[in-house]
Amino acid sequence: MNQTDIQRQIELLRRRIDKELYLQFQAREPRMLYEPMVYLFEAGGKRIRPLLLILACQSVGGNLEECIHAALAIEILHTFTLVHDDIMDHDDVRRGRPTVHKKWDESTAILVGDGLVTIAYQVLLKTEHPHLKRIIQIFTDGLLVLCVGQALDKMFELQDTISMDAYEDMIEKKTTKLIEVACEIGAILGNGSEKEQLALKRYAHCLGKAFQIQDDLMDIFSEEKVSGKPMGSDLIEKKKTYPTIHFLNHSATSVKREFQTLWRKKDFGKKEILCIRELFIQESTYESTQQVIKELIAQALEHLSELKQGDARESLRRLTLMIRDRIS
Amino acid sequence: MNQTDIQRQIELLRRRIDKELYLQFQAREPRMLYEPMVYLFEAGGKRIRPLLLILACQSVGGNLEECIHAALAIEILHTFTLVHDDIMDHDDVRRGRPTVHKKWDESTAILVGDGLVTIAYQVLLKTEHPHLKRIIQIFTDGLLVLCVGQALDKMFELQDTISMDAYEDMIEKKTTKLIEVACEIGAILGNGSEKEQLALKRYAHCLGKAFQIQDDLMDIFSEEKVSGKPMGSDLIEKKKTYPTIHFLNHSATSVKREFQTLWRKKDFGKKEILCIRELFIQESTYESTQQVIKELIAQALEHLSELKQGDARESLRRLTLMIRDRIS
Repeated sequence: MNQTDIQRQIELLRRRIDKELYLQFQAREPRMLYEPMVYLFEAGGKRIRPLLLILACQSVGGNLEECIHAALAIEILHTFTLVHDDIMDHDDVRRGRPTVHKKWDESTAILVGDGLVTIAYQVLLKTEHPHLKRIIQIFTDGLLVLCVGQALDKMFELQDTISMDAYEDMIEKKTTKLIEVACEIGAILGNGSEKEQLALKRYAHCLGKAFQIQDDLMDIFSEEKVSGKPMGSDLIEKKKTYPTIHFLNHSATSVKREFQTLWRKKDFGKKEILCIRELFIQESTYESTQQVIKELIAQALEHLSELKQGDARESLRRLTLMIRDRIS
Repeated sequence: MNQTDIQRQIELLRRRIDKELYLQFQAREPRMLYEPMVYLFEAGGKRIRPLLLILACQSVGGNLEECIHAALAIEILHTFTLVHDDIMDHDDVRRGRPTVHKKWDESTAILVGDGLVTIAYQVLLKTEHPHLKRIIQIFTDGLLVLCVGQALDKMFELQDTISMDAYEDMIEKKTTKLIEVACEIGAILGNGSEKEQLALKRYAHCLGKAFQIQDDLMDIFSEEKVSGKPMGSDLIEKKKTYPTIHFLNHSATSVKREFQTLWRKKDFGKKEILCIRELFIQESTYESTQQVIKELIAQALEHLSELKQGDARESLRRLTLMIRDRIS
């Protein structure tokens, strides 16, 4: 397949995922529980995790129908984490629309999240595979790692300084893990060899890290209409992210002081965020962060080359580049 | 065994459950996530659901070691629902101590709940049984029913009148279901016959309903030191419970008006609750509710008599009576 065909293939897969997700939630009762779920899934999304799971499965010789339920389960689980994280992080906008706890209320958002994690298991349990127990274990262990990641993230908000090591440990738990779980489950469902499973897990690890660091960068450098959430929301929430920690580790005391003064302003807003952008460009924080993302993506692609050549591997490569360029 | 031996046996089982629960949570990191979990489990509790699961398993010929993990999982799942429900219901006290969202904060309580549901699955997955997939399905389907029950409960708060049928449907989902799930999983793990599984499920159904209706009654008629939560908390939250609905269905308009005036008072407190007690005694609401509980317990015991005679069946009978008399 050529590049256009591959991109069309990914788009078709995404549509299939969207359709199946819709079918899981429409017409269920009570509406109080399911209406917000329909709202969440009709908002669309990149569907990166289910796409990765399916393509990982196909890249080792498996087929779509064997892994579709696991793919849906991983997206439902991911959506659950968004709903609860948005409450904890006081995020009012997601994908350009009010978050569940804003559109409804906190009780609804808590319950909708609880319902989603349950439905994720229900859908996962539709999978037929001799290693289903192991798959459920990977899914569950991954979920606990996510919870730990979110706990660390919240703890970091209360700390004055966070080391880069601590930050990387946190994002490996909070973001990378679920991407790893997606690829690992896909590889198992496709009956991939140990070597293939490992290559896909390592691929996911690099991709997941790149993805989060890019997200951090976009929070500061993208407009709301691109990122789907308010510009600088991490800065507003006093979250220490990759660019911020990198900046604090590599700048002169006077420049750091300038940053801290901006950051601690009581009416911290757009003006301050634009000043921080300038500082981050001036201090090469932007450039260094972009460089790290580029290296991680290169490593991810290298792991992919350990897999057998084929359409699914090419789709994974394409998806990786689309994620890098945020055009997916 | 005689009655004293049986009661001692139940107590030993409860201690084993407490010890195993403690072992699941101590020494885990990060403390932000696990300290509230230790706090929750060291508060003790009746451990009715794990006791039922174990005794159900034993009553059909199974043994403790085969079902201990499932028993722990059901208690952890139950604890998760308490933590999230307490946020949604604005309950500040549970088992005589501040609830997690009061002692810590809401974000912590949301995350601790999410962690607990995950650990419940992790612990359940330690179970070795050929029907493990079916067991996980029953566990998961039960959890979704619980979420629906909680959704209905919250919806009812916004409605002026709730029919007894709607109320019974709600408590069957919110409370009875998990008790049923406990007995059903216990029966499967003990390799009980279809007939035994059904008898235990029916037993659980009657017991669960009796348990919730009794809880409703205690909310109005017990002091905080007995129920472990503030007197009249359901009335304060404007929850329609069995006694309230029964009272509204069976009283003269003038008496109902008297009740509504009390209930709608802006500074609704202890004085009003005591007046409502008087009304409920005067209108035989208290007596009728007690009668219903008595009948449900009798039905539950009848279903037990379908099981083979033995120590476990006697323990279930004893536990049922202990629950009825709230001395467990």
